[in-house]
Amino acid sequence: MMNIDVLTLFPEMFHGVFGQSILKKAAEQQAARYNIVNFREFADNKHQTVDDYPYGGGAGMVLKPQPIFDAVKSCQEHAKTTKPPRVVLLCPQGERYNQKKAEELSKEEHIIFVCGHYEGYDERIRQHVVTDEISIGDFVLTGGELGAMVIIDSVVRLLPNVLGKEESHLQDSFSTGLLEHPHYTRPADFRGLKVPDVLTSGNHRLIDEWREKESLKRTFERRPDLLEAFDLTEKQKKWLLEFENQKK
Amino acid sequence: MMNIDVLTLFPEMFHGVFGQSILKKAAEQQAARYNIVNFREFADNKHQTVDDYPYGGGAGMVLKPQPIFDAVKSCQEHAKTTKPPRVVLLCPQGERYNQKKAEELSKEEHIIFVCGHYEGYDERIRQHVVTDEISIGDFVLTGGELGAMVIIDSVVRLLPNVLGKEESHLQDSFSTGLLEHPHYTRPADFRGLKVPDVLTSGNHRLIDEWREKESLKRTFERRPDLLEAFDLTEKQKKWLLEFENQKK
Repeated sequence: MMNIDVLTLFPEMFHGVFGQSILKKAAEQQAARYNIVNFREFADNKHQTVDDYPYGGGAGMVLKPQPIFDAVKSCQEHAKTTKPPRVVLLCPQGERYNQKKAEELSKEEHIIFVCGHYEGYDERIRQHVVTDEISIGDFVLTGGELGAMVIIDSVVRLLPNVLGKEESHLQDSFSTGLLEHPHYTRPADFRGLKVPDVLTSGNHRLIDEWREKESLKRTFERRPDLLEAFDLTEKQKKWLLEFENQKK
Repeated sequence: MMNIDVLTLFPEMFHGVFGQSILKKAAEQQAARYNIVNFREFADNKHQTVDDYPYGGGAGMVLKPQPIFDAVKSCQEHAKTTKPPRVVLLCPQGERYNQKKAEELSKEEHIIFVCGHYEGYDERIRQHVVTDEISIGDFVLTGGELGAMVIIDSVVRLLPNVLGKEESHLQDSFSTGLLEHPHYTRPADFRGLKVPDVLTSGNHRLIDEWREKESLKRTFERRPDLLEAFDLTEKQKKWLLEFENQKK
């Protein structure tokens, strides 16, 4: 079972997300255990202060080292895992998150997420507690909480037996290296908008060919970068030339 | 006021997030209005089915056009805005989300998010209802809900008067084009881990110089791509040479 702890000042943000869908199912199946910790409870000063002014002056507040050091230590003691935990800090300066990182994290026994809000982090937290600084993208969020949810969702769905047959289809659709072809379902004529004839033809050779070509076309139009690492067949090369000519 | 509608089969996922922090504040100040719609309620068949098998066969289910067409239309009628809404579909094939897109969306009056779960979307939804297909990154999530929350948080914080002085600091810290320098707060000696002397020196010229150099160093180490578009001063060029030599 994977132990997941989240250190946050906004524990209520997580309730809706952990109680639904795959994350809920993973907890029910004991594939993952979630523990949301308000690290303010670890502040050893009488006002339970977790941030303070920056040394050297300037705007903004900085999260103090003590509450986070002690909260992480407490999570470590509770998890009783043999391997030391990964301690993930969500921050804009971190390494860019991707599926490879999700796969790497899915092999861990214990992950602790540290979510600051608009405050900075005391550098000693980064240097002595955190093992991974991660950013989910080049955009500004109010806190690390949404980033933690994104990582947890993408990691937990990779744990053994969490995905059912239906859900695992999505996963598979990435493994071809191309974007997915268009999908259609009933009705064949929806308010005058029709499904391509080939899909209702019953000819599976033609259907497979249509899907392969549309998949390649969508990748060519939207993510040509993916094609660079792709080993094209002769037929696919011919289609690509066709798309390039249409574009001119 | 910005009208934000979210079409989802998991409305409970949003409760924790919309009820906290900046998003809550924005609603209280009437800068934004959130409306979570379970589009299953719009299904016009007696079993309230929202998905069906794909034409042409294959694994996985596909979201039917009717419930989403009608839910979007209903949101449009309720919002009473003059400009047509942006209809954002969260999907892996979409354009990559970034801060520029957040700024673009923050100028809209009405945004409708369409969140599928592990199902595919009938292509007619993409072609005739959706205005923007967006992906928040190259990783697999169970549904569009977390992506919608990420976009909503990053957009709403850009609306006028939503951010207070403290929160807006984070925003500012991106505008230099470099990553942030390290931050430190009290105590100066935490369990033997010390704050750099310069920060407690009281010499603001030296402090500013230390911060500028550390900011450049962190950018050099973690995001050298950001330096390509950066207009370096002579002093910064000298520092960069220094970092490069240290690296060898």
